Amino acid sequence: MNYSIIRYILCRVLEFQAMFLALPCLAALIYGEKEGWAYLLVLVSCLLLGGLGKLKKPKSTVFYAREGFVAVSLSWILLSVTGALPLFLSGEFASYTDALFETISGLTTTGASILSDVEALSKCNLFWRSFTHWIGGMGVLVLILAILPLAGGYNMHLMRAESPGPTVGKLVPRVRHTARILYEMYIFLTVIQIILLLITGMSLFEAMTLSFGTAGTGGFGVLNSSIGSYSVVSQAVITIFMILFGVNFNVYYLIRARKPMQAFKHEEMRYYLGIILVAILLITVNIRGSFQSLFEAFHHAAFQVASIITTTGYSTADFNLWPQFSKTILVILMFIGACAGSTGGGIKVSRVIIMLKMVKNELSHLIHPKRVRQVTCENRVVNKEILRSISVFFIAYIMIFGVSALLISLDNLDFTTNFTAVAATLNNIGPGLNEVGPASNFAVYSQPAKFVLMFDMLAGRLELFPLLLLFTPYTWKRS
Amino acid sequence: MNYSIIRYILCRVLEFQAMFLALPCLAALIYGEKEGWAYLLVLVSCLLLGGLGKLKKPKSTVFYAREGFVAVSLSWILLSVTGALPLFLSGEFASYTDALFETISGLTTTGASILSDVEALSKCNLFWRSFTHWIGGMGVLVLILAILPLAGGYNMHLMRAESPGPTVGKLVPRVRHTARILYEMYIFLTVIQIILLLITGMSLFEAMTLSFGTAGTGGFGVLNSSIGSYSVVSQAVITIFMILFGVNFNVYYLIRARKPMQAFKHEEMRYYLGIILVAILLITVNIRGSFQSLFEAFHHAAFQVASIITTTGYSTADFNLWPQFSKTILVILMFIGACAGSTGGGIKVSRVIIMLKMVKNELSHLIHPKRVRQVTCENRVVNKEILRSISVFFIAYIMIFGVSALLISLDNLDFTTNFTAVAATLNNIGPGLNEVGPASNFAVYSQPAKFVLMFDMLAGRLELFPLLLLFTPYTWKRS
Repeated sequence: MNYSIIRYILCRVLEFQAMFLALPCLAALIYGEKEGWAYLLVLVSCLLLGGLGKLKKPKSTVFYAREGFVAVSLSWILLSVTGALPLFLSGEFASYTDALFETISGLTTTGASILSDVEALSKCNLFWRSFTHWIGGMGVLVLILAILPLAGGYNMHLMRAESPGPTVGKLVPRVRHTARILYEMYIFLTVIQIILLLITGMSLFEAMTLSFGTAGTGGFGVLNSSIGSYSVVSQAVITIFMILFGVNFNVYYLIRARKPMQAFKHEEMRYYLGIILVAILLITVNIRGSFQSLFEAFHHAAFQVASIITTTGYSTADFNLWPQFSKTILVILMFIGACAGSTGGGIKVSRVIIMLKMVKNELSHLIHPKRVRQVTCENRVVNKEILRSISVFFIAYIMIFGVSALLISLDNLDFTTNFTAVAATLNNIGPGLNEVGPASNFAVYSQPAKFVLMFDMLAGRLELFPLLLLFTPYTWKRS
Repeated sequence: MNYSIIRYILCRVLEFQAMFLALPCLAALIYGEKEGWAYLLVLVSCLLLGGLGKLKKPKSTVFYAREGFVAVSLSWILLSVTGALPLFLSGEFASYTDALFETISGLTTTGASILSDVEALSKCNLFWRSFTHWIGGMGVLVLILAILPLAGGYNMHLMRAESPGPTVGKLVPRVRHTARILYEMYIFLTVIQIILLLITGMSLFEAMTLSFGTAGTGGFGVLNSSIGSYSVVSQAVITIFMILFGVNFNVYYLIRARKPMQAFKHEEMRYYLGIILVAILLITVNIRGSFQSLFEAFHHAAFQVASIITTTGYSTADFNLWPQFSKTILVILMFIGACAGSTGGGIKVSRVIIMLKMVKNELSHLIHPKRVRQVTCENRVVNKEILRSISVFFIAYIMIFGVSALLISLDNLDFTTNFTAVAATLNNIGPGLNEVGPASNFAVYSQPAKFVLMFDMLAGRLELFPLLLLFTPYTWKRS
């Protein structure tokens, strides 16, 4: 293990963290809030620590897959630990654990909160919570790759460890250009959404924070009613942008490269939109009786489906009160998640498509054992190595799910609460059902259970293996 | 597709069904119950239909994998449909659907009942219910293979389609001898249990029916309290035999072949016993407060763990009232299930071990991409084809689980009830939690939901693919 290069990367991450913290500082200045001092203190500390640690250049630039995984996992932990400090120092959180839970929930774009009264928070804290969604959505290492002229072959290893999906979609041959293009499109879409929300009558503060939450598919709101008290038009804009940010960014790259037909034929996007459509229709019919008009039922069904499949977690209605059929659809959507290469979490639509095709092929294989059939996706044959890695991902995913649900069951909350609490954190959604439903929060859990759920949020965002590798001897053994 | 040979096999199955029905007839005769006429009527019909249909010899003996799958699936459906007739004709079931649910639950060794008052049933019906467990446990086609001198190469295809586990363990080179040895050991263990239960003071009727339920890992009892009102010694005997019937029968074959050391080193058995031990200890500590003595807590924990991991489903206590941690352990055991090559259901311990090793290998692979590591089980390398088939099985399993839970959620029962109802049927256990807990029954579900659960029971017993193949065009297309 090349420890010196990991130290170097972590110092760079601290410098970036200082840069991120400048924004809530600014917010505190504008709103004249004393909590700004906490941000300033942590900002300066990060800057100093990062700058000092960076002085000693890394001894070697040897960088393999394991350095990539460890660097990414530790970066995310470092961002969480330092990001929680100003929240804790502001005195608005009961404990450092709670502040850490909130920060991890923000960075991993989960949006699960331990707060019962969000509106009591200072503006700079609200701003920071939402901004962590935006940072975590596209990824910090991806941002560093886009900005810093890092030499050496480690770009791809870092990108692979942080990017969601079964394969890493390099848009252009060079990783650095890919990272830059991704952030350009990310910023572009975010700005458009902010403008549209301003037009629908929101304040700049609300338009910005809610757009950060949408772009990162996070879910932290700034009101206790989440998105429930905004106008129908604002809610509709958010619905559309949630769906847009759940699309594979390759599609936007194709549009940007003036290949609209190819973008239109993107298989994962088509399945994704198809699932959304079917889910909205089924839920609309199922909840029709609870709303005054068909449009209203459709509006809330569309918002909630978009919110859950993209793993955002905003809500306009308390879907915990909806009929069981609608709730079960939402729980299934939690697991499917958004497209690979988007800012959303979950298993990802492309993995689900490929797994479905594997089952279909198995049926054909059982009947005709000698006939060779291959799994294709996006008009290309998916090689066996990827099929294997998708299967193993799924197995590891279900196992982590089971172990987490068992551990938090020690708190003796009901089965549905525990099951959906793990589903909502491992898939980076936010609200679950029953006691962690949209009208409740995660404060019901004990400190140990909160740590399990924090692990799940990080594991979900980094797609399990980078985080699991921190706990395996293979990683730390000398090779 | 060679339809004529499938017809021939189905006729043979009908003849065997007639033979099975002779036992409840005898029970009715002994207890002087008029319900015996229903059994006699169905017996004679099966005999006539089977005999007549068999007259025309099959045109060809061509028999491939697909004929094997179709023959096995249709045999099980035929046994269920005809086996439900006497229950329905006896007038003790509200509808034919209910009688069919009970019969499928019996044959698939699930033990989920739609009855609230079991004790109101006539003795012959109680006997039949329990006897279907015993038939379904080791398998009907296996029995036919053991008894009939079927020529041709189709033995292996039938055996493979009906036997549980990732690979088919042929004990001896010839399939027919394997089938015969399996049934010898099965009968031997069942008889020992009957004798032991008689010694503990049970009546012959109770000793027989409860042993059938234990041997097949079924779960139908003859009292409303399941096993709760028997003596502690009787309960202990059942605990031990449940665990014994969940062991891979290869272990008994090794003992029979005087290779005790090899039997002792059987990897799957060791994991299986290890899981049981850990689960019993954890639950004992967790439920200690609800019982008068440590022994009592241990006794009920041991009974329930044995009952659930072997997918039997007997109960001595209402575990739905236990703390959430214990309940979650039981739910996880539902999925793990018993050993492959036993009469138990679930995913099977060997599959779980292999999947765990796959995840472990993946972690090592990510760190050292060039180092080749293989998965071993029972000291042998598991080939890639089997790894693939285990992964696909698991994927199909979770997907069927999700779709079933969604479909039955239309009844608007709570999430825990639906989740555990599917877990209890797909894994062939019996009771779940909440409204399908050990003190309740499956009558809460509507007719359509019952059909979904019937599908799950059959899919679980036949390990998904044989049943799924009935619904795929590949099976019915001309090749």
